[in-house]
Amino acid sequence: MLADVGEAELLRRLTEIAGEHVPAGLRLGSGDDAAVWSPEPGSELAITQDALVENRDFRRSWITPRQLGARAITVAFSDLAGMGASPAWCTATICAAGSTGLGDVLEIHRGLCKAAVEFGCAVVGGDVSDIDGPMVLDICAVGTVPAGSYLRRNAARRGDAIVVTGTLGRAAAGLRLLMDGLGHIPPADRDRWLDAQLVPRPRVSEGRRLVDAGVRCGGDMSDGLIVEAERTAAASGCGAELWLDAIPVDAGLKRHFPDAWVELALGGGEDFELIAAVDTAHLEELQTTWPKSLEPLHVVGVMVGGAGVRLLDTRGGPSVPLPTIKSRHYR
Amino acid sequence: MLADVGEAELLRRLTEIAGEHVPAGLRLGSGDDAAVWSPEPGSELAITQDALVENRDFRRSWITPRQLGARAITVAFSDLAGMGASPAWCTATICAAGSTGLGDVLEIHRGLCKAAVEFGCAVVGGDVSDIDGPMVLDICAVGTVPAGSYLRRNAARRGDAIVVTGTLGRAAAGLRLLMDGLGHIPPADRDRWLDAQLVPRPRVSEGRRLVDAGVRCGGDMSDGLIVEAERTAAASGCGAELWLDAIPVDAGLKRHFPDAWVELALGGGEDFELIAAVDTAHLEELQTTWPKSLEPLHVVGVMVGGAGVRLLDTRGGPSVPLPTIKSRHYR
Repeated sequence: MLADVGEAELLRRLTEIAGEHVPAGLRLGSGDDAAVWSPEPGSELAITQDALVENRDFRRSWITPRQLGARAITVAFSDLAGMGASPAWCTATICAAGSTGLGDVLEIHRGLCKAAVEFGCAVVGGDVSDIDGPMVLDICAVGTVPAGSYLRRNAARRGDAIVVTGTLGRAAAGLRLLMDGLGHIPPADRDRWLDAQLVPRPRVSEGRRLVDAGVRCGGDMSDGLIVEAERTAAASGCGAELWLDAIPVDAGLKRHFPDAWVELALGGGEDFELIAAVDTAHLEELQTTWPKSLEPLHVVGVMVGGAGVRLLDTRGGPSVPLPTIKSRHYR
Repeated sequence: MLADVGEAELLRRLTEIAGEHVPAGLRLGSGDDAAVWSPEPGSELAITQDALVENRDFRRSWITPRQLGARAITVAFSDLAGMGASPAWCTATICAAGSTGLGDVLEIHRGLCKAAVEFGCAVVGGDVSDIDGPMVLDICAVGTVPAGSYLRRNAARRGDAIVVTGTLGRAAAGLRLLMDGLGHIPPADRDRWLDAQLVPRPRVSEGRRLVDAGVRCGGDMSDGLIVEAERTAAASGCGAELWLDAIPVDAGLKRHFPDAWVELALGGGEDFELIAAVDTAHLEELQTTWPKSLEPLHVVGVMVGGAGVRLLDTRGGPSVPLPTIKSRHYR
């Protein structure tokens, strides 16, 4: 276990894992007082930091150490994706009790590093610390974006189409299964939902594509569609109207959660899809040139006057009550 | 207490505190998915991350919340100082139990922000999280340094003078007082040592001066002179010889700790002074042009062949046994 391993030896092993990938611009990796990285001229940096705390953001009995490391990266990279930025480097702090297995800590770090490298990013530093309590993973991630072109929350205008990537509700369904038991769910649905909860993917390519297409308003949906639509509308000084029948809900959700599918799909977070507001004059071009290799883009509503979120059954149809938004945390 | 405050309200108040200072190059502060910062052309970034964990790195009964926030910044900025970098931005994660007072968390954040701003740096983001356990502060700090000129550990050569800034042993003496009780220590000594432990300062200006003077090998001394001299020598493939009578030891230390002063001054860390290796051909110029406003520079030894650290009573004098190095952690 961790308490039996010297700090120097632990750092050596973590550095060895991280050092397998050297990202563009890295002048000096781990081992000195700090890493040194040279930014590409003309780029701006998007900066985010996200902590995962045991028994609040994850339970160790639900997730393998490697999945946990990868999930920490996804949570941070999703913020970069929401800015349209490409991950460049990240740092990772792991606080773990002395009773934690060394193998588990190394696996978490492998998961972190592997997930980062998939996006051309490396773990360039961080800290490892003993804690007499829950495990904490804290990731600071930095991505690059061409100067002035990042996606922001406050650039929507009344009349803009609200678009989202991917399919919603899977991660929330997965969390429900983990909390309430698997029940009689067909394996294909079950695996899809558990994967969405345990091994989500950040929509980095989708965010970059939005930037390249000239979209200027967007963000990630870690807190679910309703919260994120409201956040984007509020930052832009307008309201949001969502059309229930247009929202890309996972096909099995209505079948297995007839009473809860709206809440799961619109209120549950952690799908880590993106939301954007698009000028309707450019919408068709964005849709027709959207690469098939990316998560599909769906128009789910429109930015309107006023404030807050209204949910309609269909475009121009009757109002539907907003579902209850539960906290995405476990307690 | 924290559990009674909504996350949105807490974030709003933290952002308000952080937003009072806008550093150079910041395009977008807190409130979006990520902050956006534009690096100055021709600069490289030094990157470090440091976690402080309650009951391991600090005890809340010893330190005020504001001092704690400032201390977290010093620990991270000391790494930047050790690279000769100027702090540009940082992010801060605070994990605190729901029973923590809201006022305490805001005070920690004020301490963080105030300490950062003193060095022209701002807290541009971070995370705040509930934890059912010890408090964790985790800082990612980034500084800039002219391309190619950062201080590194591995650039010492045999014959280089080993120099250190400031006075050693104060922080370790302060820790000893906190752990063993204040005893009969004159108030002036006591306050100086407690301040060194509780409100240390990073040697940012000293690091920049070393870079400007053309020094290329250096680092910070968070782990104490012996450990850091050994680390620098090992990275450079040589050994280090230290002269006990040349080491700038706090004047009261020999008086009050006649049996432990060597251990405190050479083995105790957290003075956050700097160490550097300087070509003797440039040493006199470095010394004569060293600004009086900075912590004084002292030659304390020489890089030699072989490996490891040898301690001599005086230059050319007899060997002295190395003191025991205790962990700088409290348990």
